[in-house]
Amino acid sequence: MNVFEAISTRYSHKGSFLPDPVPLKDLECIARAGFDAPSGANRQSVKLVILPDRAALDPVAEVVSTEGLRTAPAAIALLTDKTVTPEGAVNFEKEDYSAAMQNILLAATALGYSSLWLDHPYWGDENEKNARVALNASDDYKLWAVIPIGKPDGEGSRREKQPFENRVFYTKFGQGKP
Amino acid sequence: MNVFEAISTRYSHKGSFLPDPVPLKDLECIARAGFDAPSGANRQSVKLVILPDRAALDPVAEVVSTEGLRTAPAAIALLTDKTVTPEGAVNFEKEDYSAAMQNILLAATALGYSSLWLDHPYWGDENEKNARVALNASDDYKLWAVIPIGKPDGEGSRREKQPFENRVFYTKFGQGKP
Repeated sequence: MNVFEAISTRYSHKGSFLPDPVPLKDLECIARAGFDAPSGANRQSVKLVILPDRAALDPVAEVVSTEGLRTAPAAIALLTDKTVTPEGAVNFEKEDYSAAMQNILLAATALGYSSLWLDHPYWGDENEKNARVALNASDDYKLWAVIPIGKPDGEGSRREKQPFENRVFYTKFGQGKP
Repeated sequence: MNVFEAISTRYSHKGSFLPDPVPLKDLECIARAGFDAPSGANRQSVKLVILPDRAALDPVAEVVSTEGLRTAPAAIALLTDKTVTPEGAVNFEKEDYSAAMQNILLAATALGYSSLWLDHPYWGDENEKNARVALNASDDYKLWAVIPIGKPDGEGSRREKQPFENRVFYTKFGQGKP
């Protein structure tokens, strides 16, 4: 799929998924796209856990139980390694994770799947810890999100965006097209 | 360009740029890709300022004067609106900006340009403020990065990535391919 088509057709699928399995090779292709994202100071903090079936996904979906995580045939858990940032250095984990996430969403779109970026349920320490422990990851790592991947059950709604002209300026902030 | 080709050929161009101008329609196409990124709670915090020539870019490049910003024929400044997050709500500005950034880098790659994600020079209050003021943006906004865009002067170096197998796990963290 053309990159501009992937960028413009990607959407946040908040509904449920069909049970059709996602081939492991597709999940690996999506994961590779995630790792291809840039990372601050090239620290490559992102680690991914492929959850290829319900048996792998169920223990995680018990912690944060969204419609997507309850029904998706597969998912990818996105973590960062907290130990890669040297003492006193700028921490880029949130940028690293977000860039990898965006590539993952685009790759999933290109392969015909829907997905969802949902992180705030893991912002509370309790959910982050419980889902991370369900994945067997130590507290050297931070779990940011679990991304459901699969064929959507129905169209899903897309939220409206502001017009381009309201968000872009030319030469100076606030200035319209010359 | 295919999305996987854009994802895998994008790189961080730390060298200088050729002076060849970037057509405004290309800069607008890249900006549109940025706005197509998801945003937390659909707050659409990202605003972009297209800097279409050296006259627009020079005042900003005086604040953070990297080789790329000193030589690029064009750039896009990426800001977020600090006022869109309700009191007490989770703040998604860093994710919003990072997702938009990643789309911008991929769109630039697809159109044959090089670019660079460089934010940490603006993390100190002083540079952020001075560059933002050079753009005429008030402190309702936060400047995250100025992204140089153009044809690279030379190949540029690409940093090595860890092997896929070191960063991906299956079903549980630490577990290799079944």
